[in-house]
Amino acid sequence: MTTVVVRHDLPIHETLEGTRDGLTVRTARDTEETKARLVDADALVINPASWDDALLDALDEGDWVQATSTGYAAFPVEAFRERGITFTNATGNYGSPVADHVFALALGLARGLPTFLDEQRERNWDRTKGGELIDLDGRTLTVVGMGDIGESVARRGLGFGMDVYGTKRTPDEYDGVLPADRVLEPSALDRAIGETEVLALTVPLTEETRHLVDRSTFETLPDTAFLINVARGPVVDQEALIEALETGRIAGAGLDVFDPEPLPESSPLWDLDNAIITPHVGGRSRDFVDRFVDLFLHNFDRRRDGDGELRNRIA
Amino acid sequence: MTTVVVRHDLPIHETLEGTRDGLTVRTARDTEETKARLVDADALVINPASWDDALLDALDEGDWVQATSTGYAAFPVEAFRERGITFTNATGNYGSPVADHVFALALGLARGLPTFLDEQRERNWDRTKGGELIDLDGRTLTVVGMGDIGESVARRGLGFGMDVYGTKRTPDEYDGVLPADRVLEPSALDRAIGETEVLALTVPLTEETRHLVDRSTFETLPDTAFLINVARGPVVDQEALIEALETGRIAGAGLDVFDPEPLPESSPLWDLDNAIITPHVGGRSRDFVDRFVDLFLHNFDRRRDGDGELRNRIA
Repeated sequence: MTTVVVRHDLPIHETLEGTRDGLTVRTARDTEETKARLVDADALVINPASWDDALLDALDEGDWVQATSTGYAAFPVEAFRERGITFTNATGNYGSPVADHVFALALGLARGLPTFLDEQRERNWDRTKGGELIDLDGRTLTVVGMGDIGESVARRGLGFGMDVYGTKRTPDEYDGVLPADRVLEPSALDRAIGETEVLALTVPLTEETRHLVDRSTFETLPDTAFLINVARGPVVDQEALIEALETGRIAGAGLDVFDPEPLPESSPLWDLDNAIITPHVGGRSRDFVDRFVDLFLHNFDRRRDGDGELRNRIA
Repeated sequence: MTTVVVRHDLPIHETLEGTRDGLTVRTARDTEETKARLVDADALVINPASWDDALLDALDEGDWVQATSTGYAAFPVEAFRERGITFTNATGNYGSPVADHVFALALGLARGLPTFLDEQRERNWDRTKGGELIDLDGRTLTVVGMGDIGESVARRGLGFGMDVYGTKRTPDEYDGVLPADRVLEPSALDRAIGETEVLALTVPLTEETRHLVDRSTFETLPDTAFLINVARGPVVDQEALIEALETGRIAGAGLDVFDPEPLPESSPLWDLDNAIITPHVGGRSRDFVDRFVDLFLHNFDRRRDGDGELRNRIA
């Protein structure tokens, strides 16, 4: 018998219910309730925004925490390791929606959607609006962070006929759609982007990636470039970005993540003609719950049968 | 010595100027001026909206008309043939921008851009807005009209991991990125689209394609489907489309073309939440002039040297 506590707003518990003999699913709405229900439970499904270190003492050795996110900076991974708590994340579940979001933002900028949607609200047909439109064919796309999401971005870029490069902390380990010599170390970034017209950020936030994109990046990019950030806000020096957009140092930005979030009402980013802003929804997908439940059950079965590696095991 | 008259708003004449010895480039702003300048000229570059049958008598046997468009319904092709006037169009120059526009519209709908851009205008961060977002991976894309533009749409769809089908008047002649059994005759359309979640129209307007998409199409499509029209307005029964959008019979439409154009201010399409409207700009591209001049010079060289087929020769 396994009891899992699910702390998530989406209907994960309804979808999990009844999928396996011997699996009991319980929900929890806040930290107190989660803590109370964990006493009799063996597993926890939780998103990073709901994690509270107060939950740590309610977990026993051998328990299992399955995060609903790819990023896990909010979780005490070292403490999990020390206490013998298994921890898995949801890498692989976000490649499609986030990569689609990258191209929604890039094509929104390239094809003038903010202008045309404003005109639509005014019921105004004006073919002189929208400025110069751009097609992606033959332009250079550089994907910073060739993990699961970056790979999905690269695959789409090739479909658009783009010239695609990527960066990866361990380029020697890369095995994907790009030729090996197109995948560079992160330190090569500023040297590599002189021709980059779409710079897409898909790295986790770490001490190395904080402010990875800064004033010098904007000085190196061509003034026709778009920055697309679906990673984490602090990967970009936001002040430098605002200046680059205000001065036309780059052509535009498609931003799903900010520093801080929520983006304050006072931020100048909201008003920039050459920025599209979405409220950290890149990972949202009609398919999320189904994909997540597939992942959970895969790991549940491995644990129950005691055979095979858990998928996405971090601790 | 060849003299070409250029009747076009974009700087085609400046770009052509000085590219070949013996090529004189003249511009014309209206039909009268075009007619007058054609007397001493051998070639005409013109967009279909500027064509006037009054120009026919100013052309001599052996002259050459190069259209800047792919569509050529506005040109008297039979009369060109009878009079020995060479006529070429610009097929191949629009694949990239129009196919990018298809995905800008489809992803704009799928990723909630109209809602998020409205929120941006209000400086409002609200992650509950935007409804259910969709990713394209695994969904069925059907491309109606597997010509140059349709092929470019199909290639991008494969990059998104979509399940791609196409229609073509002559499926036996198809030779592109799709497996042969994925390319159907147009008459198979209504049978084939029960699973189609993105229906992209890229056919020319002919008597066969007028109202090709009608009430029965909307009854067959799943209610999660998006219609994307970058072809010509009358390919769709616009009244039936409005009804399908108003009743939720389909999930949304991305429309660059209308019946009639300009779309009248009174059209209910403007106000629909689930429609994105752009004013027939799918073919607009920063690269248009360069691509067009390449095509013109290719054909110019063939004519001058008297060797090889002209590209895109219609008459």
